[in-house]
Amino acid sequence: MALLNGSFLLQFFGFCVIVFWQFGDVMQFRITKKSSKSRARLGLLETAHGVVETPAIVGVATLGAVKTLESSQVMATGTQMLIANTYHLHLRPGEKTVAKMGGLHEFMKWERPMMTDSGGYQVFSLGYGRDYDVGKVLKEKRDAVKLVKAPKHLKITEDGVEFRSHIDGRKLFLGPRESVVVQEKIGADIIFAFDECTPPIADREYTIAAMERTHRWAKECLRARKRKDQAMYGIVQGGKYADLRKESARIIGAMDFEGFGIGGEFGDNKVTMSKMIRGVVRELPDAKPRHLLGIGHPEDVVRIIKEGVDTFDCTAMTHNARHGSAFTSRGRIDVSKAQYVHDKKPLDPKCDCHVCKTYSRAYLCHLFRAKEFTGMQLLTFHNLYYMNTLVASVREKIRKGEI
Amino acid sequence: MALLNGSFLLQFFGFCVIVFWQFGDVMQFRITKKSSKSRARLGLLETAHGVVETPAIVGVATLGAVKTLESSQVMATGTQMLIANTYHLHLRPGEKTVAKMGGLHEFMKWERPMMTDSGGYQVFSLGYGRDYDVGKVLKEKRDAVKLVKAPKHLKITEDGVEFRSHIDGRKLFLGPRESVVVQEKIGADIIFAFDECTPPIADREYTIAAMERTHRWAKECLRARKRKDQAMYGIVQGGKYADLRKESARIIGAMDFEGFGIGGEFGDNKVTMSKMIRGVVRELPDAKPRHLLGIGHPEDVVRIIKEGVDTFDCTAMTHNARHGSAFTSRGRIDVSKAQYVHDKKPLDPKCDCHVCKTYSRAYLCHLFRAKEFTGMQLLTFHNLYYMNTLVASVREKIRKGEI
Repeated sequence: MALLNGSFLLQFFGFCVIVFWQFGDVMQFRITKKSSKSRARLGLLETAHGVVETPAIVGVATLGAVKTLESSQVMATGTQMLIANTYHLHLRPGEKTVAKMGGLHEFMKWERPMMTDSGGYQVFSLGYGRDYDVGKVLKEKRDAVKLVKAPKHLKITEDGVEFRSHIDGRKLFLGPRESVVVQEKIGADIIFAFDECTPPIADREYTIAAMERTHRWAKECLRARKRKDQAMYGIVQGGKYADLRKESARIIGAMDFEGFGIGGEFGDNKVTMSKMIRGVVRELPDAKPRHLLGIGHPEDVVRIIKEGVDTFDCTAMTHNARHGSAFTSRGRIDVSKAQYVHDKKPLDPKCDCHVCKTYSRAYLCHLFRAKEFTGMQLLTFHNLYYMNTLVASVREKIRKGEI
Repeated sequence: MALLNGSFLLQFFGFCVIVFWQFGDVMQFRITKKSSKSRARLGLLETAHGVVETPAIVGVATLGAVKTLESSQVMATGTQMLIANTYHLHLRPGEKTVAKMGGLHEFMKWERPMMTDSGGYQVFSLGYGRDYDVGKVLKEKRDAVKLVKAPKHLKITEDGVEFRSHIDGRKLFLGPRESVVVQEKIGADIIFAFDECTPPIADREYTIAAMERTHRWAKECLRARKRKDQAMYGIVQGGKYADLRKESARIIGAMDFEGFGIGGEFGDNKVTMSKMIRGVVRELPDAKPRHLLGIGHPEDVVRIIKEGVDTFDCTAMTHNARHGSAFTSRGRIDVSKAQYVHDKKPLDPKCDCHVCKTYSRAYLCHLFRAKEFTGMQLLTFHNLYYMNTLVASVREKIRKGEI
């Protein structure tokens, strides 16, 4: 009888844990190994939608779909987590619709963990990005461009940013409070604090002002959060200035976030990027997860993981795929090129993905030349699978003590 | 010992049958039931790549891919057979490339039976079609259009047709011999004789000339064929003139084809179409299969099967899907419409396909409004599944004696 009661109590306790988890608990992060050779670590990011083994690459589902694929295909690529875009979902279909449909997981039938960015990146891409046609990494020929004071077409105030919709031009306003409200409605497992992302051409004065605004907004976001079942990451900014980066990491790192995003730009080359990440990571609390925003080409993977990055997202996998560029163990190949017209080999003979096990480069070459959507879909599947496998192999190397 | 020898002989015989089948035998058609209520029949079309249960709808893979899907997805829709396009594959990637890659089945990894059309339809679509912007069915407002003598931008001679590539404008020539050569290189299970497809606006005199040319070309195609493992279908033409249709069916039907295509246009409405098919089918040999070219909207299916059509292909399933139009048991729905923004129901609550079992109309609505390719893919999958299921239900009704 005592045993029965004990068993019942155990079951009841288990039930309470589940209820608590589903309705109240936030993500947990457990570090399972730290490398002795680098700042790399293995970890488990535990959410209500399952566990992510870190380091992990995060797939980009801007509008609630990984472009050209459906959720079940994305899961088959080994993708552990997705990031969707707050600004884009706010415009289409709108966070209220997403909430009405049961949240983004239910809407897009994605059964694994998910993040939403804060919309802060659009302060950059629709501001500086559009005004001066710059990306996050300064192109060489632009080195001589004079640093500019501020974006021309955005109105940034202490409360937030006045955008114009890239679809119909209507006025939009997004600030820390608005971003949190939208992200809570969308309902991802991890949300980001609203930030201002500064580009390579912003001068020091502007970068400081933007960074300090980002810090104030971070506090605002923490105050604004209502849901207890979402983790919130603060974002470190500071542009290309190492001292600002460290300052930002110290300030944001001291706030009560469950994890941290590292945003913005990272100088002119990959070495500078590594140094910058190193400086930032050193200032962040060791026990919490770090997400590198918008970086993750194949050649970056080992470098950023070695610096202690736990998760990272990048549109390179999907964007390249739609333009015919496949990631392979021997580098990128543009499968639409004439040299592949009669090539019977798979995209990557070392890859085990469905596409490599089934189709020839020649067929994929034909699909791209004939502008068949099917080609984009197949390459997207391969690139996601390839990158997930690459990151899994890096985890294995950390496990074995090789990295 | 005698038993062993017998077993060996049996095995050897079996082996010979397989070899003979793979390298020498042509498609077989077996009628398993004839309806007592209509001209409908059940049949089995046996090819080296498997058996098609007829009546069957044939999926369109113009360029060696069903638009937006890959072969394994198409198989999952229940599609039994595909038709690819000789003219399009001749241009891209070229029949020599297809042959080098092991034929179209191997190239696109389609494991089931396949047809290629003859390229004759392009005589129409790039001739009359382009010159006068007409489709196969005359639009009402054009009823008054004066019948015209001949297409302006094509040069049609006794030997064939001089085209201009729709891609780069270069001159191309396709005649009966060329069409057979190309189709033998592509290597489908069933190929079609080269024909001239005439549109609603061709006058009687021109229609007669084109039909007689089609008959001469049919003989030419039979003479030109070299492969013994492909079935060849002759194509009945004759435009909207019932007497010409019958004449064409009688003449083509008497030739040594393994089956027959019914091409061209079928008058102004669906009733005329039924009558026209009835007249044609009556003249064709009963034991051989009949394929209706380019007709197969949901509302046509029962009508054409009742007239004795065994297989038919139509781009409606895929074309509609790419424009947001889903076939359902309650008619077509344009899923991008505002009324579906919050609709949690599947496209068709009666459909068992992966898309209907997984996603809501609201999600599909969002994907179409956001112009995400994923939406086109999901609707294409559903439409193919829906049509295959619809045709399977018609087969079941014939089996039960209800049609």
